Amino acid sequence: MGARWRAHWFHIIFGHEDMAGRRFDLLLIMAILASIAVAVMDTVAQAHARYGKTFYVLEWIFTLAFTLEYLMRIVVVDRPWRYMRSFFGIVDVLAVLPTWISLVAAGSQYLLVVRALRILRIFRILKLTRYVGEADLLWLTLVRARRKILIFFSTILTLVLIFGALMYLIEGPEDGFTSIPTSMYWAIVTMTTVGFGDITPKTILGKMLTSLIILIGYSIIAVPTGIFTAELAAGMRTKKRKLMSCARCGRTDHEDDARHCRMCGAKLPLESG
Amino acid sequence: MGARWRAHWFHIIFGHEDMAGRRFDLLLIMAILASIAVAVMDTVAQAHARYGKTFYVLEWIFTLAFTLEYLMRIVVVDRPWRYMRSFFGIVDVLAVLPTWISLVAAGSQYLLVVRALRILRIFRILKLTRYVGEADLLWLTLVRARRKILIFFSTILTLVLIFGALMYLIEGPEDGFTSIPTSMYWAIVTMTTVGFGDITPKTILGKMLTSLIILIGYSIIAVPTGIFTAELAAGMRTKKRKLMSCARCGRTDHEDDARHCRMCGAKLPLESG
Amino acid sequence: MGARWRAHWFHIIFGHEDMAGRRFDLLLIMAILASIAVAVMDTVAQAHARYGKTFYVLEWIFTLAFTLEYLMRIVVVDRPWRYMRSFFGIVDVLAVLPTWISLVAAGSQYLLVVRALRILRIFRILKLTRYVGEADLLWLTLVRARRKILIFFSTILTLVLIFGALMYLIEGPEDGFTSIPTSMYWAIVTMTTVGFGDITPKTILGKMLTSLIILIGYSIIAVPTGIFTAELAAGMRTKKRKLMSCARCGRTDHEDDARHCRMCGAKLPLESG
Amino acid sequence: MGARWRAHWFHIIFGHEDMAGRRFDLLLIMAILASIAVAVMDTVAQAHARYGKTFYVLEWIFTLAFTLEYLMRIVVVDRPWRYMRSFFGIVDVLAVLPTWISLVAAGSQYLLVVRALRILRIFRILKLTRYVGEADLLWLTLVRARRKILIFFSTILTLVLIFGALMYLIEGPEDGFTSIPTSMYWAIVTMTTVGFGDITPKTILGKMLTSLIILIGYSIIAVPTGIFTAELAAGMRTKKRKLMSCARCGRTDHEDDARHCRMCGAKLPLESG
Repeated sequence: MGARWRAHWFHIIFGHEDMAGRRFDLLLIMAILASIAVAVMDTVAQAHARYGKTFYVLEWIFTLAFTLEYLMRIVVVDRPWRYMRSFFGIVDVLAVLPTWISLVAAGSQYLLVVRALRILRIFRILKLTRYVGEADLLWLTLVRARRKILIFFSTILTLVLIFGALMYLIEGPEDGFTSIPTSMYWAIVTMTTVGFGDITPKTILGKMLTSLIILIGYSIIAVPTGIFTAELAAGMRTKKRKLMSCARCGRTDHEDDARHCRMCGAKLPLESG
Repeated sequence: MGARWRAHWFHIIFGHEDMAGRRFDLLLIMAILASIAVAVMDTVAQAHARYGKTFYVLEWIFTLAFTLEYLMRIVVVDRPWRYMRSFFGIVDVLAVLPTWISLVAAGSQYLLVVRALRILRIFRILKLTRYVGEADLLWLTLVRARRKILIFFSTILTLVLIFGALMYLIEGPEDGFTSIPTSMYWAIVTMTTVGFGDITPKTILGKMLTSLIILIGYSIIAVPTGIFTAELAAGMRTKKRKLMSCARCGRTDHEDDARHCRMCGAKLPLESG
Repeated sequence: MGARWRAHWFHIIFGHEDMAGRRFDLLLIMAILASIAVAVMDTVAQAHARYGKTFYVLEWIFTLAFTLEYLMRIVVVDRPWRYMRSFFGIVDVLAVLPTWISLVAAGSQYLLVVRALRILRIFRILKLTRYVGEADLLWLTLVRARRKILIFFSTILTLVLIFGALMYLIEGPEDGFTSIPTSMYWAIVTMTTVGFGDITPKTILGKMLTSLIILIGYSIIAVPTGIFTAELAAGMRTKKRKLMSCARCGRTDHEDDARHCRMCGAKLPLESG
Repeated sequence: MGARWRAHWFHIIFGHEDMAGRRFDLLLIMAILASIAVAVMDTVAQAHARYGKTFYVLEWIFTLAFTLEYLMRIVVVDRPWRYMRSFFGIVDVLAVLPTWISLVAAGSQYLLVVRALRILRIFRILKLTRYVGEADLLWLTLVRARRKILIFFSTILTLVLIFGALMYLIEGPEDGFTSIPTSMYWAIVTMTTVGFGDITPKTILGKMLTSLIILIGYSIIAVPTGIFTAELAAGMRTKKRKLMSCARCGRTDHEDDARHCRMCGAKLPLESG
């Protein structure tokens, strides 16, 4: 009977198929979003001054609920140890640990650090990824283009290093280019067209080099976009085509729902799988 | 005879086919653009000081004209109630209401609020969308890519939340990162390469994380562009298909070079042109 | 004999085929670039202080040379009046007029205005477009996508108007949003991810709306890129394909250099044109 | 025996095939990255104050190692003179020269210049490109699109010149537009959506022109991206062709579904796999 009780709750907590499982999922997502909202709003000075106490209570309610959920997951799952070492097992414990630690280590001097730990609770949002099943195609496209992206980033970083060093030599510390790392930060900010404006070239030579750097960065922006688009378009085209060939005229490249060859009209063989 | 009068004006106001209907449309578009220009220019201090009175008179002329147009629409249309609750019915009334309310509520203390209400009059520009019939393909592409766009935005917002919280911890209030919401605003401004520069990292660790955030945002910029382009290219390719239908099974949407129906194998008719 | 002299110079000045014509073209391009460089450098205070006199002399040498060239063009061309009213006829005269006017109108009080007129001389660079024959494909793609681009810009401007008005209401003059036109300028700067940072939101509501505006603008950046890429890709694909069909098996869509059908091996008909 | 010794070391230093060669490559890459890290960190004031001496010693260790490597390369290679004049021969010597020069020219007054020379050592990173063999496709795509890119940049620069001159006339030196070159720098920063904000328009006319410039630049951003994507997609499609050759006429590069050679009509061999 204990086994049946466990199986029942396992379906509710881990399953997404039946009504009860979906309701639990929805409830959990809303609780995660609400707990993040509380943690985020608590850092706003005015909100903390007015609703600090409410936030504190809500914080503990969420922590207790998530702790209970975590313990339930360990109890109902078949191999608790495997779950605890899985990605979401670690995320689940990271989502409640900071608040519990703040209780134990609550000395006046550790207060700020604990507050920092509490913000880690936003990693609860990673739990949401569990519910996204559509991200696969995008992810696959990124994975397929990974070598091209790696080369692209190496090129960018080499350019950032060379341009950063040149700007450090030309402009120097008095114009904000205080070191090569700072210059490299500026080069990244500039080449990606972010352009904060906290550091800007003052000399004529510096402005000329900056113009060149920007135009190069501007051209390079085409590269990752082009890579990704070409890969995605190729992926979408492949998915929509049958790979079998017509037995009579040999024509391949038929549409997904084709039953007859569009060239000679012969019946196409059935696809297995 | 009243019916003929109504039908006559219905064609002028709601129709776009004959000369009179097109002239009315053109006149209305120009009136809308002119009334918006007046409302916009009235907020410029120098213009208000010099032409404030003229603007006030023009404002009332436009309001009276649009009110008359709205009443005419109600009178000539077959089902007035249905029109009034339609999107453009609500827009049409919103376009004149603020000025009328400013008359009723014109106390000295409400003056500023009324001015604000008057600016709502710019929603008249939404009336222009009535005349744009070409936007369909673009809109369709956006709709078809909506799931991918949703996932993309969820990813962006998760990254914004995590990076915002990290920058809040690293930089802190003294460098402008006063709260997590402010940090998230900064993360959005940075990841989208807007880069206002009102808040910028000061510490070395903050600058390093900023560089990382920018490069990630820079890579991600490829995603929505790629999605949209691939969808649009697929849509344009589909449009080039044959529009004729199979004589035997009625199947339409054949490929450009198809000679036989891909469903039943029957010969397709030759296209003339 | 005068006719032969004219024909000879017509070939040199207007022709691009033989050695003399190409040498003249090259000389003219270099003179145009040099004269622009002089006009540009003359506005730099330090350069003007040191080389102002040299710039003045060079300015007059270029003006005399371009005037002589303009007169020569009128003399050697068959229909001078038609040339003078052509685009490049007007550009050619605009390229020398400002300097000549500065001579006539050289009163001390007009000096600045004249200086301004002299800068118009940079329109000489438009002459360079005469030598660019490769821009056609890009231009054609832009022309073919013009309706989509028009709709896109209308949408952008409507959004700019609505968001500009909203930000004017939310932030108000004290935060830099002094009028709706200024707010619209800010909205354009923000939505296009330029982000100067001369005007930035200060209130929480303003920052939230700004985040929304940026994310919308960020999504919309995909639209013109996608349109252009899809059009260009379609244009490139069309150019590379033969449109004739195989007489034996009816297969269309052959490569540009194909002589035999790749399906049945039958000889393809020769293309006329 | 000296020849055998040379051949042995030639394989280690120049070869990438066997174990020893790959180990040497890996060691060299790590040494290059470490030496760049030292040179970069030495420009940070705090790091220089604390670890300046360590950096100095490490600097000399790397310089000695790279000098030894350079001499070894000259000794073991067959035609030393050809290597020394090759691209990587020059890079290899540039990577050690600055530190050696700092020894000879170490007068107190040359100190800053020498420091500058030492930074040139970062060109060592160019050595890394030797190990990147995957960059070919990207590079090829850029090369194939070079004419289009050239026209694109000419257009951009013409627009930058015209808009820069116009903004100089409209805004003038008192608003930061001190000269046409500065205005052109601003136009590049603005049109590429970098937008530092160090120079911004103050007048209404200037803001209107800026909005126009931004929208034009925003449209133009679609051009290089579109060119690159279309070229890359075309390149990827080409790659999917059959690599086998026709047995009769030797023609390669057939389409994926080709059964007959499109040149001579002979049957193509079946592909195995």
